[in-house]
Amino acid sequence: MFIPAYSHSGRHVRPNYNVLLLIILQFVPRTVEGVWPLPQTFTSSTERYPLNPQAFYFGYGSQSAVREGCSVLDAAFTRYFSLIFPANGILRFNQAGPFTVEVSVGHDDCEGYPGEDSSEKYSLSVSAGHASLKAETVWGALRGLETFSQLVYQDDSGSYFVNKTEIEDFPRFQFRGILLDTSRHYLPVQAILKTLDAMAYSKFNVFHWHIVDDPSFPYQSWTFPDLSSKGAFHPVTHIYTQSDVRRVISHARMRGIRVLPEFDSPGHTASWGKGQSNLLTPCYKGSTPTGTFGPVNPALPSTYHFMMKLFKEVSSVFPDSYIHLGGDEVNFSCWKSNPDVRAFMHKMGFGVDFTKLEAFYMESIVNITSALNKTSIVWQDVFDYHERRRFLSVVEVWKAGCYLCEVRKVAKAGLRIILAAPWYLDQPGPTHNWARYYTVWPLAFKGTEEQKKLVIGGEVCMWGEYVDATNLSPRLWPRASAAAERLWSDEKQTSSVEKASPRLMDFRCKLLRRGIQAEPLDVGHCQHEYQGI
Amino acid sequence: MFIPAYSHSGRHVRPNYNVLLLIILQFVPRTVEGVWPLPQTFTSSTERYPLNPQAFYFGYGSQSAVREGCSVLDAAFTRYFSLIFPANGILRFNQAGPFTVEVSVGHDDCEGYPGEDSSEKYSLSVSAGHASLKAETVWGALRGLETFSQLVYQDDSGSYFVNKTEIEDFPRFQFRGILLDTSRHYLPVQAILKTLDAMAYSKFNVFHWHIVDDPSFPYQSWTFPDLSSKGAFHPVTHIYTQSDVRRVISHARMRGIRVLPEFDSPGHTASWGKGQSNLLTPCYKGSTPTGTFGPVNPALPSTYHFMMKLFKEVSSVFPDSYIHLGGDEVNFSCWKSNPDVRAFMHKMGFGVDFTKLEAFYMESIVNITSALNKTSIVWQDVFDYHERRRFLSVVEVWKAGCYLCEVRKVAKAGLRIILAAPWYLDQPGPTHNWARYYTVWPLAFKGTEEQKKLVIGGEVCMWGEYVDATNLSPRLWPRASAAAERLWSDEKQTSSVEKASPRLMDFRCKLLRRGIQAEPLDVGHCQHEYQGI
Repeated sequence: MFIPAYSHSGRHVRPNYNVLLLIILQFVPRTVEGVWPLPQTFTSSTERYPLNPQAFYFGYGSQSAVREGCSVLDAAFTRYFSLIFPANGILRFNQAGPFTVEVSVGHDDCEGYPGEDSSEKYSLSVSAGHASLKAETVWGALRGLETFSQLVYQDDSGSYFVNKTEIEDFPRFQFRGILLDTSRHYLPVQAILKTLDAMAYSKFNVFHWHIVDDPSFPYQSWTFPDLSSKGAFHPVTHIYTQSDVRRVISHARMRGIRVLPEFDSPGHTASWGKGQSNLLTPCYKGSTPTGTFGPVNPALPSTYHFMMKLFKEVSSVFPDSYIHLGGDEVNFSCWKSNPDVRAFMHKMGFGVDFTKLEAFYMESIVNITSALNKTSIVWQDVFDYHERRRFLSVVEVWKAGCYLCEVRKVAKAGLRIILAAPWYLDQPGPTHNWARYYTVWPLAFKGTEEQKKLVIGGEVCMWGEYVDATNLSPRLWPRASAAAERLWSDEKQTSSVEKASPRLMDFRCKLLRRGIQAEPLDVGHCQHEYQGI
Repeated sequence: MFIPAYSHSGRHVRPNYNVLLLIILQFVPRTVEGVWPLPQTFTSSTERYPLNPQAFYFGYGSQSAVREGCSVLDAAFTRYFSLIFPANGILRFNQAGPFTVEVSVGHDDCEGYPGEDSSEKYSLSVSAGHASLKAETVWGALRGLETFSQLVYQDDSGSYFVNKTEIEDFPRFQFRGILLDTSRHYLPVQAILKTLDAMAYSKFNVFHWHIVDDPSFPYQSWTFPDLSSKGAFHPVTHIYTQSDVRRVISHARMRGIRVLPEFDSPGHTASWGKGQSNLLTPCYKGSTPTGTFGPVNPALPSTYHFMMKLFKEVSSVFPDSYIHLGGDEVNFSCWKSNPDVRAFMHKMGFGVDFTKLEAFYMESIVNITSALNKTSIVWQDVFDYHERRRFLSVVEVWKAGCYLCEVRKVAKAGLRIILAAPWYLDQPGPTHNWARYYTVWPLAFKGTEEQKKLVIGGEVCMWGEYVDATNLSPRLWPRASAAAERLWSDEKQTSSVEKASPRLMDFRCKLLRRGIQAEPLDVGHCQHEYQGI
């Protein structure tokens, strides 16, 4: 809604009024200068340029390796135009001249996928009538477009402006993820897509899809259709079809987000057993099967045949070079009770050390996925309980307590690390203290420079026990954005909660304006409140 | 979506199939027999009757004092038809005969408002082709319609059924409220209306509108327009116009919900001062005003003139016979610092006992509203700190700790009580343990029968520090429903959390189906997940 500053009087002649206003506003500094997460270097001045949506253009630079027809950037231009000039925008009456955002990209990766080594570096220079955005890859260009969109603001009269700005930017960590759990509660595809939208606003770049677990198996496998037809909450309404999965991967790709699937085993697999007989370990009481089942049965060759086929499918469906194999929280009691498993232990010379059996199983699964050219990630349990660690590549640290002690141990072992422990956002608790997720120092452990480089990033985990589409967004946002800044920005420039606070509040209002149900951080208001009720 | 039970085969001839299915289902008992909150007496059998939406009618009984044209019930019939047969319903193919719900009401109160003494009693008898709903008032009939709507269910094929049932029902407590705080964050009218919808589903009957407070004054007063034009977060987008307020009151009335406005003073009034000069107490340091302001200034006659005019307006805008006057958390330091206040204390013979000043102020405000024929409610602070309590009517107990000790004290003093302390749902904490809000025993204090009758009910408080339209619904629902059952149902029949749990889970799924963003209680799924993303 447009509230003219001089609404008490209709006497002002429009052109004069505009000129007058422009002159006045030219010298009013912005109160909140918000880009979230904070760019690595950022210089701006109070000099500002009016933007006229009728004469605002995105274009490709003459030296750019990519041009019109680049799927990722063409779509991004359309998307960011709407984000910069929202349909619910208030009346604007400036007659500003044309403004062009010229994008130049070094490599033509328009039809590829973002990967672990993709550069996200960009530079952005905003001057009169023109912004120049340069990046090595289209993924870097996407990050720059996001930054540009956050630089644009409206004054009280509704006119759009952008200040003179110079930015050089790149992420501190290469891996910046969010885990969604679609097994404990089914999340409609729309809820995942909306999360991907919001992830891009905070420059997250990995969607860790914890797609199956004990309660349900919603992934519709073409190799083993019974897994979802019998293991999902409902075989039709509560599954992800191949087409759903492609839609998620495509939506993510367009935003420079990798999709990392997790098929957690040998524990957390109760739902797998419904559609695949002889996969789980039958538990025994004495010499009698109880009718209940434990983890995947590591003693049967058929288990590895099944896993080979399943992971072959999964590897072809999900293009990312990483795959998450889980491996957490394996309860040994059922294995111990089963005579066939015990016989297998004996045959293999494992004695009564079930961690050896687990290691054997995990190593086999890692080998299966290595043969499929995938880099595997495992939860820290697999690292913690095994002496042979050479088969491991990336370890995800999730346990509370001294998580940096664990990070240090994994780094000493020469393995790469993803840090999730401090960012379990599904946890109930004092939910509003976002600072707790902000004041995390992932490299504050004793170690060499080389060891610190092994920390490739971090991840926000949104487990599904108490989370579904009804509360996912307010529980994630804007608290996940606090983690996002920690993972993207320079630590020295972002160590103060006090300094970050007004920027995060401003960013949260931007999220609301973009339709993201981001919960409030404190008493107050946004110019545009959440309207999706 | 319709999933035929025998989808593997297309050979079944439809009519035979239907008959077969009906015969089979006739003998399958319902697994979850859910009415929430639990009716006082409830008898049902496995005998069940198919409902055909094409031949389903609401009508008035021949002995009913109200007929077609009754605004409250005519609208309720339309509303409940859609709730019973949702547009997102799955295919149904039964050819059942007509079914009529016949409503008979003793008093014609169709155009009135629900009040503190309104009967909500009803009886409901469901038999073949017919349900008979009898109530003393239209408000009781609304409660019965809600119950009936919850009795209807769909089988897996999508057919609608209702079981043979006899219900006699009435609320345990007369006052069952929800407080929303529209000052710390502005709640769009749509969010309030949606909350009223959901309140009716849990049989809440009071919307306590904590409409103004320190941070903002969104109520647009016609007598003092500056209060919102200067005291709201925004004078146009963040206010409640008279028309908004009428819309809320009307929406509430149609659902048998009273609207109880709170204009809290003398503390919690910082926003009032922006639009009304000389209302708040200027704070001093020594003999110099600091430029800051404290509570309402009780020493000036102009204060009482202002309050008289404001409450005259408020009393005419809000039809309910109750008004909430606040009176909580008054900080005396500013009063103490102010020489005029001190002089007034001296003149009135209060010495240095500022509780006497506060009592004087509150008694004046109570007298003002009494003269306007309103029953006033105050927060427990007003009761706690004053020896003269005869001017009080209803005390709302809100402080944590031994709240039943407080209830007992207030009851001993012969005053009526509303219990809010155990139901502060805005509080962060272990958010999922709804049982904490269920296992509350409001009458478990030592007292006579007469004293226990003074507990007129309870209230869920949703304060606004960290709550706005982005997270209001999942924070309220279904946890508030746990409180609702405590306030409506018989305590002996609802003392078990284990027994209540499946019914509450079922009820939560009903809320989702009705578009209420009610968060999950545990791992699992609903047939119809929340779609409003």
